[in-house]
Amino acid sequence: MDVRLAKRAQEISPFYVMELLRRAKQLEAQGKDIIHMEIGEPDFTTPPAIMEAGIRQLKTGEVKYTPAAGLPELREKIAEFYRQRYAVTVDKKRIFVTPGASGAFLLALGVTLNPEEELLMADPCYPCNSNFIRLFDGKARTLPVDAASRYQLTAAQIKQHWTKNTKGVLIASPSNPTGTLIGAEQLKQAVHTVNALGGCFYSDEIYHGLVYDDKATTALEFSDNVFVINSFSKYFGMTGWRVGWLIVPEAFIDATEKLAQNIFIATATHSQYAALAAFDPHTLAELEHRRAEFERRRDFLYDALLNLGFEIPIKPDGAFYIYANCSKFTDDSFQFALDLLEAEGVAVTPGKDFGINEANHYLRFAYTTSIDRMIVAMQRLDRFINKG
Amino acid sequence: MDVRLAKRAQEISPFYVMELLRRAKQLEAQGKDIIHMEIGEPDFTTPPAIMEAGIRQLKTGEVKYTPAAGLPELREKIAEFYRQRYAVTVDKKRIFVTPGASGAFLLALGVTLNPEEELLMADPCYPCNSNFIRLFDGKARTLPVDAASRYQLTAAQIKQHWTKNTKGVLIASPSNPTGTLIGAEQLKQAVHTVNALGGCFYSDEIYHGLVYDDKATTALEFSDNVFVINSFSKYFGMTGWRVGWLIVPEAFIDATEKLAQNIFIATATHSQYAALAAFDPHTLAELEHRRAEFERRRDFLYDALLNLGFEIPIKPDGAFYIYANCSKFTDDSFQFALDLLEAEGVAVTPGKDFGINEANHYLRFAYTTSIDRMIVAMQRLDRFINKG
Ligand SMILES: Cc1ncc(COP(=O)(O)O)c(C=O)c1O
Ligand SMILES: Cc1ncc(COP(=O)(O)O)c(C=O)c1O
Repeated sequence: MDVRLAKRAQEISPFYVMELLRRAKQLEAQGKDIIHMEIGEPDFTTPPAIMEAGIRQLKTGEVKYTPAAGLPELREKIAEFYRQRYAVTVDKKRIFVTPGASGAFLLALGVTLNPEEELLMADPCYPCNSNFIRLFDGKARTLPVDAASRYQLTAAQIKQHWTKNTKGVLIASPSNPTGTLIGAEQLKQAVHTVNALGGCFYSDEIYHGLVYDDKATTALEFSDNVFVINSFSKYFGMTGWRVGWLIVPEAFIDATEKLAQNIFIATATHSQYAALAAFDPHTLAELEHRRAEFERRRDFLYDALLNLGFEIPIKPDGAFYIYANCSKFTDDSFQFALDLLEAEGVAVTPGKDFGINEANHYLRFAYTTSIDRMIVAMQRLDRFINKG
Repeated sequence: MDVRLAKRAQEISPFYVMELLRRAKQLEAQGKDIIHMEIGEPDFTTPPAIMEAGIRQLKTGEVKYTPAAGLPELREKIAEFYRQRYAVTVDKKRIFVTPGASGAFLLALGVTLNPEEELLMADPCYPCNSNFIRLFDGKARTLPVDAASRYQLTAAQIKQHWTKNTKGVLIASPSNPTGTLIGAEQLKQAVHTVNALGGCFYSDEIYHGLVYDDKATTALEFSDNVFVINSFSKYFGMTGWRVGWLIVPEAFIDATEKLAQNIFIATATHSQYAALAAFDPHTLAELEHRRAEFERRRDFLYDALLNLGFEIPIKPDGAFYIYANCSKFTDDSFQFALDLLEAEGVAVTPGKDFGINEANHYLRFAYTTSIDRMIVAMQRLDRFINKG
């Protein structure tokens, strides 16, 4: 290791699933059939109208930098989306188009987090969170959560763990890996608590479109004093386009704009033009079909995993993940995942990619593959478990 | 200002040119003809073969995340480009595809720079540099340069200003705003000096394709122990596509890959596929025509500005900028730029966007517009100067 490596870079942990992916690739190269249930992106293609809008823009040849905050008409459409979907009014000046939710995290934490300041977040959670915090030399303070709070932080937890070094709270609903929504009342309490404590509230709403029973609630319903992170990646089927958005409190507009100008210049132009078509009624209708398909898959997988003896304390509400307790079969879910891949060619993500809270007893199954493939995966899983 | 704003965000200075741009927009809305000589991107469209490669990819609909380090075939092509253009061998594992040179800066500084560490760089230089450094809570230590060293740092300066807090040195050649190249010998000495001091050497080579007399030298010719930042934005005419690259020393490969996975996930997929066509012989031939046109423009503008009484101590070698001394006309180049815009509708960038070294005596003229338009601009500039 080079002594010139920044301290933060030394502390970034690898994704364990990468080790599985490497092995999966080798096995595939040997001709083995691998069922991928570790993948965090929709298997659907980008909806045609979005794709065509992107192509139309490219054909002009005028693929120049856009304003740093994004195309004005896209910011307007996003504001309109909040009016229609959530009956919430957001000044479009507060909306920044970013290179994915990833870019939104960079901006939101870049304008707020000082070195040594702490953010509170749930364990388990999206593994990049702590590394975004580390990027700015802050500290991720993860708090264990369980089914009792739908794997989401509560206001009581926030109050209890708040210290003078705490900068704020980051939640994601539906959560990756658990797929659980935070209840509207729980979210409201959390937002109000953080506001009262004078902290920053960051709400990752990237899986909002993908909920199956209840309705997802945006943090903006309870306060304008929140950072909302969202993206065209998941619900809109645009992962590879790298386009998302960030909504900031009024007082942060100028700083966010300056930071965006400096570190991104702008988000990819054709991706922004393509995203303009994401809110067309036609496209939204198609996305609703896909959502229904994801719901069928969730129901299938939920039942199948329970039947095999996995424990799933609450049925996930959204995203495309089931976080299943496998303690009936193993005390080392990473080894279990490696063995399952080796023996049966089924790839899943080990709990330890999402934290340390009971991580060795959990596996994340992504239903980003068809029910037909999942039927085969479940047969293989059954054989794997019952042969042991 | 919100007390929750991070310290770094409070310190990021705005681009002064933004004020000019806002005013230019207002004037344009009033029907006034504005000649834009402040714009840092080519006026040419993206070459057709690149555009078509992007469209082909989009049409598949499979716009999924790529590996974090980029498409393997693009990394291979970039390695091949180094073999052909510079006769330098670069292991493709050291090459990371990024969202523009901007993304390359994020990665390079993210994996190396600790809070409070200093980087040495020239004043004047690209304004985002200090803000990238600030993002990681490091310190930009700018050293005044002048025509004697072609506006580039020398080994002697580096040695003189090196302290125990110095992490490394950042150079850009050709420079933005001066357009001057660092000589091969000067670059070699600088690289060897930084290596001997145990620091990091960052070489921004984004304007390499756009040089008109001499040949540009990559820092990789003198050491593998350097960070090279480059992009498809300028020479390849792909600003809005947001695709560039970073080359890291061997020892930084793992850390860079982990950081890229976490903060970007990946660079836009279709932009990467499009960039695959950037090295086609056809495309390169077309880009050479454009380079010749930029050369004609440089020659025209250089002569015209000298004729008007601006001082340009050395003829710029590349990029599409001329950094002209206007002390014959004003001691406040920013006010001069504002007045010129107001009176004559010519937009240029004030020196103070690039540093503090004699900044009030300089203006940056970008020749990203046609000679026909520049002829009109020079007539207006003449009238502006001689009416006063
Ligand atoms: C919870 C969560 N937030 C943010 C992201 C970042 O996605 P993107 O940058 O593609 O918008 C992901 C991607 O997997 C995620 O799962
Ligand atoms: C010197 C220099 N470096 C880097 C960049 C960043 O360009 P991009 O992110 O589009 O590759 C620019 C853009 O103007 C520049 O002038």
